[in-house]
Amino acid sequence: MTNQAERISLKHLLSVEVLSDLEVMGLIHRAQEFKQGAKWEPEKEQYFATNLFFENSTRTHKSFEVAERKLGIETIEFEESKSSVTKGETLYDTVLTMSAIGVDVAVIRHGDEHYYDELIESRTIQCGIINGGDGSGQHPTQCLLDLMTIYEEFGTFEKLKVAIVGDITHSRVAKSNMQMLKRLGAKVFFSGPREWYTEEFEVYGRYLPLDELVEQVDVMMMLRVQHERHDGEESFSKEEYHQKYGLTEARAEKMKKNAIIMHPAPVNRDVELADSLVEAMQSRIITQMSNGVYIRMAILEAVLTGRS
Amino acid sequence: MTNQAERISLKHLLSVEVLSDLEVMGLIHRAQEFKQGAKWEPEKEQYFATNLFFENSTRTHKSFEVAERKLGIETIEFEESKSSVTKGETLYDTVLTMSAIGVDVAVIRHGDEHYYDELIESRTIQCGIINGGDGSGQHPTQCLLDLMTIYEEFGTFEKLKVAIVGDITHSRVAKSNMQMLKRLGAKVFFSGPREWYTEEFEVYGRYLPLDELVEQVDVMMMLRVQHERHDGEESFSKEEYHQKYGLTEARAEKMKKNAIIMHPAPVNRDVELADSLVEAMQSRIITQMSNGVYIRMAILEAVLTGRS
Amino acid sequence: MTNQAERISLKHLLSVEVLSDLEVMGLIHRAQEFKQGAKWEPEKEQYFATNLFFENSTRTHKSFEVAERKLGIETIEFEESKSSVTKGETLYDTVLTMSAIGVDVAVIRHGDEHYYDELIESRTIQCGIINGGDGSGQHPTQCLLDLMTIYEEFGTFEKLKVAIVGDITHSRVAKSNMQMLKRLGAKVFFSGPREWYTEEFEVYGRYLPLDELVEQVDVMMMLRVQHERHDGEESFSKEEYHQKYGLTEARAEKMKKNAIIMHPAPVNRDVELADSLVEAMQSRIITQMSNGVYIRMAILEAVLTGRS
Repeated sequence: MTNQAERISLKHLLSVEVLSDLEVMGLIHRAQEFKQGAKWEPEKEQYFATNLFFENSTRTHKSFEVAERKLGIETIEFEESKSSVTKGETLYDTVLTMSAIGVDVAVIRHGDEHYYDELIESRTIQCGIINGGDGSGQHPTQCLLDLMTIYEEFGTFEKLKVAIVGDITHSRVAKSNMQMLKRLGAKVFFSGPREWYTEEFEVYGRYLPLDELVEQVDVMMMLRVQHERHDGEESFSKEEYHQKYGLTEARAEKMKKNAIIMHPAPVNRDVELADSLVEAMQSRIITQMSNGVYIRMAILEAVLTGRS
Repeated sequence: MTNQAERISLKHLLSVEVLSDLEVMGLIHRAQEFKQGAKWEPEKEQYFATNLFFENSTRTHKSFEVAERKLGIETIEFEESKSSVTKGETLYDTVLTMSAIGVDVAVIRHGDEHYYDELIESRTIQCGIINGGDGSGQHPTQCLLDLMTIYEEFGTFEKLKVAIVGDITHSRVAKSNMQMLKRLGAKVFFSGPREWYTEEFEVYGRYLPLDELVEQVDVMMMLRVQHERHDGEESFSKEEYHQKYGLTEARAEKMKKNAIIMHPAPVNRDVELADSLVEAMQSRIITQMSNGVYIRMAILEAVLTGRS
Repeated sequence: MTNQAERISLKHLLSVEVLSDLEVMGLIHRAQEFKQGAKWEPEKEQYFATNLFFENSTRTHKSFEVAERKLGIETIEFEESKSSVTKGETLYDTVLTMSAIGVDVAVIRHGDEHYYDELIESRTIQCGIINGGDGSGQHPTQCLLDLMTIYEEFGTFEKLKVAIVGDITHSRVAKSNMQMLKRLGAKVFFSGPREWYTEEFEVYGRYLPLDELVEQVDVMMMLRVQHERHDGEESFSKEEYHQKYGLTEARAEKMKKNAIIMHPAPVNRDVELADSLVEAMQSRIITQMSNGVYIRMAILEAVLTGRS
């Protein structure tokens, strides 16, 4: 790492897998600079961002909003139920409108996978697109804040052992994390309900029983049980899940001395991990949320710079 | 037009018809200055605007918001369903509250025609009112941005031929446009379903079959089929409407070389006009949206200046 | 009152009763300074506030928003129905998130009494809490703006006679007002439906028939009939309430020459008081709303100062 982070320019941020290692590390380093108080020196006097969240969110939405304000960007909020979407206006025409009225960058969370394809192909839409989550597709800013939090802790990804535990099949970010972690030199393992681990993950890492894994890894990355994406097909109660696949207090005690706990949140307390562990010493869950602001500042800067 | 636009002062903006030609042209010229980068020099250090939208909107609402931010005005958003309106508080008492807490100007869209009468008669309400649409009454800022877009294109209204096509009966803005265009020297024509053209419009212009009109006019102003204001009484399908009364690709080819296409949006693509025409060379629909920001800056400035 | 108001520091503002007289008067004097144009000189370059309103509100919510902007604080709005609360996230974890992403102070209105206890006990939540109303518990900022309005009018609380009239049992603020007014030297009386006056209020003041009271007091503080908190158990119509317990025009004429009318609003016009009295000369209802902005500026300043 040089004294000053390599400045990354992006046209959009849709997926983390398409980023080069240099781009990923550049964004992480820049986020660290922002965390230490660095300022953005914008080229234009005033920038406009809009946050188009078609799915509910607290962390992603609000940390983008804080990131925008910290950069001095004007935020235009959008409420689907109060908009012309209720008159049948499409996502395309909504973003076209935002572009036409002067919005420079649109942060979008939408239920449709690859919703952004038609937006970036448009000759008329002028604004950058930052993907805040597309259905069960990508959630690149969550992946980048996870990577930042790990890098900040250990100073490297090389040879780190990372366990990804839980609802892997339904997790947008687990799929990005396994790919990126492997690419950056970490060793990935999986655990959780066996039926949520499928062959497609084997190329990234092995499935191991949780009690074996917990003693070996540097990072316990617990995934949210996404009750809202399942249809009640789970065959176990919350208590059963916690005992079988959750990070109980007993299991946490077996973790390595410097190992950390991560979770994208919102946490189902006493399901994925014990209530007492959420804010415990070895937890980095609060840090993940804080880092989310700084990585999003780096991404916004990269996209706004990349377009001017 | 002098080097600098005549500065217009307004107490409120409720209707476009009550404006003098000087006021209309002053607002248009000032909007053009803003488009070229002019800045507002406010008298007070801080101004507050509130956007009270009791009907759904993307373009009008969000372009007011952008206009406010570009002028450096603080925007106080209002969500009817989260407000004391749910406890029975009236529009009058809501605006009175906004005035009492320091709001200088209220942009209001409300379903009741002439909702603003009691507001502007109040001795206690101190804030200016800008009408963002009152039921099927007025929508003055849309009319002014349409006029601006035409003026910007042709440099004059004199002898311009403008076709207003479609759902004239239900269009707030069509009624303003026909009056203002006639007053400013343009020649207005109508087309669309015959039953949506009534005797009251005869004073402003003639009804002509669409295929005859399309070859003659400088401006094809297509109106939105307001499905949400009809009660399913239409006797034609979307395809039928497009073929009979819409701007098809075939019809667009017969347009004069310098003629332009306008639409207030949201467009029902392939109904009022062919999908491919929305973002075509001769379309000014994106320009209308962009101009909406600048004309609203001019209006906000005129009202805030007019009250201090 | 010295030339400059004593600067008050608070960790949180949860209840008005725990404040010392010095703190109450310090906040009132500081609010008066803000009303006269005083500026805040913040220690940090940028502060963030979030307004978490889980119950509907216009006045409290929007005057906090104006107060924040007047102090130059960035406001992060929160919409419960668009947040992870819909996925089961608790108030605690929502505030924890806001704290983690950099919010300095959270203004919260929530239906649960003492919702704030677990928030202020948290070692992890870093932000100050300002109580914007907790169920039928406390509403300290309303009480303080009432006190400010009375003090501004009479320059003292000593020996002032204040009538609190109406739905005392269901009023968060009536209970705070009776305690604080008595403590600061005023003489409190009660009126309204007899069944809404219970023994617990006797220590603060006597119940008197309205027609007797109206001639004697300096302040007629009318309370809102909270239809939304009753379950239709009222045994009188709106007209009956007005005639029996409301401030009719006839009763208002019997008020002392310098006596004032107050109401927390929203007013049920022609129920608690005659429509014509809301904006009358002797009414301070508009002033209460205006003062609400200034007292909230003083509170925000006190909490932000108290935490840095």
